[in-house]
Amino acid sequence: MTPIHPFDEASRLTRREDGTLVGRTSPAYWNFAGPFGGITAAVMLRAVLEDPSRQGTPVAMTINFGGLVAEGEFELVPTLVRGGRTTQHWSVELRQGDRVPTAASFVFARRADTWEHHPTSMPEAPPPDRVEPLDTTKWMAWLSNYQFRFVSGGPVLSRQIHDPLHTQRSVVWLNDRVPRRLDWLSLAALSDAFFPRVLHARGIGAKMGTVTLSTYFHVDEAELAAQGTTPVLGVADGDRFCRNFQDQRIQLWGRDGRLLAVGAQVLWYDS
Amino acid sequence: MTPIHPFDEASRLTRREDGTLVGRTSPAYWNFAGPFGGITAAVMLRAVLEDPSRQGTPVAMTINFGGLVAEGEFELVPTLVRGGRTTQHWSVELRQGDRVPTAASFVFARRADTWEHHPTSMPEAPPPDRVEPLDTTKWMAWLSNYQFRFVSGGPVLSRQIHDPLHTQRSVVWLNDRVPRRLDWLSLAALSDAFFPRVLHARGIGAKMGTVTLSTYFHVDEAELAAQGTTPVLGVADGDRFCRNFQDQRIQLWGRDGRLLAVGAQVLWYDS
Repeated sequence: MTPIHPFDEASRLTRREDGTLVGRTSPAYWNFAGPFGGITAAVMLRAVLEDPSRQGTPVAMTINFGGLVAEGEFELVPTLVRGGRTTQHWSVELRQGDRVPTAASFVFARRADTWEHHPTSMPEAPPPDRVEPLDTTKWMAWLSNYQFRFVSGGPVLSRQIHDPLHTQRSVVWLNDRVPRRLDWLSLAALSDAFFPRVLHARGIGAKMGTVTLSTYFHVDEAELAAQGTTPVLGVADGDRFCRNFQDQRIQLWGRDGRLLAVGAQVLWYDS
Repeated sequence: MTPIHPFDEASRLTRREDGTLVGRTSPAYWNFAGPFGGITAAVMLRAVLEDPSRQGTPVAMTINFGGLVAEGEFELVPTLVRGGRTTQHWSVELRQGDRVPTAASFVFARRADTWEHHPTSMPEAPPPDRVEPLDTTKWMAWLSNYQFRFVSGGPVLSRQIHDPLHTQRSVVWLNDRVPRRLDWLSLAALSDAFFPRVLHARGIGAKMGTVTLSTYFHVDEAELAAQGTTPVLGVADGDRFCRNFQDQRIQLWGRDGRLLAVGAQVLWYDS
């Protein structure tokens, strides 16, 4: 029997007899004071993907992290807000008792072949096997589920603010440490698998966390399948950090220089 | 008596005796088959800004355009999803009868002065009064409320797909045609005042429309006030257009090269 992959274990949903969808936080994907946002995104996406009313594939998701998800069980409540001929809008609430720490919206569509254009190119990077993975064994648990091979802009932790500041832009090969074929869920999780830009720039540890995350999917099932277990090249950058908040934009590049997904988020940071 | 500015007229909300918040679509901000998305974003933001429970200033908004807003009245239903000590998460539904054509989420925060960093620079551009405004008089109504002074990457309409393709990146000075001091509402609207990247690249008219839009605000009240009626420099770019959808990312630059807001969106396009 093949053991279940930690990612599948952590993003598992079960349905109670009363119909409620239930998930459970995973110690393996724990961050500072709650689960890794990417695993929360994945499990919320799963709630829609596995809904019998769902049509098409994911086009966009927005996850609003309103409060900490507490350790233990949670309920997911997916709602089809609007279903057109080709496009569906869904909302998903993650509930713990009467709290809704996380709320998400998803756009799904039956996509057709159309005129295509791919004006942006993947940055130059040495192949992943030529880049040493970051040692994350002493860091938060969730990091050990991935390998981070920084091509440029790796994080350098420091007791004092870097002087001069380091670049806030990172290029990094990303893959599940235990190989797993890329799917919608892991692509959603990878879109949140970047360290805060403010950490890269200044180096000091401080409280920080994502408040809202949007990811836009460019792949179809065939492109996803073609990626297999090959690492994905992630690019992350940020434009402005001020008054407790910073923006971040990302790209996830796949085989043959195809852009699998792009995204943007806002992170809160302390002082 | 000063006449009411068209933008304020179009984003006006009234409260019925039963407490319902009511808005009305404006012919002046009409797009192809519904209102300009930016005016819908503005009126949904107004519903939160004017709510007595609102604290702080806008940090992020996501607007999901699920269906067409029909001409006429609509109701707005703002809900405080989660309120922390410094950060609030709101949702707003735009309802017409039993339809919810548009749903939005907002993050507000009481922002404090923190460590700041502004690593990205405003692109070089001649001053706005040296750039000719685009003649939009024969286009959709909403465009006449703005002046678009393209520094580069202006739209060129064509009967056939451009060969070679034009750039999908635009740099453009933007301002209300009738001067109006920049505020949260007009900044929100401006974040959607870009033409689809796919139109810039290929030039042919086709059905297209935003399905989801996220905008992140970097300004505080003082920076907003300092902008006054000075044009804002908009930058828009896109990475990939395929299977009916394209991404788009934008920056809105203000006086002294400060980044006022950034954003991202997905647009649907036909064939």
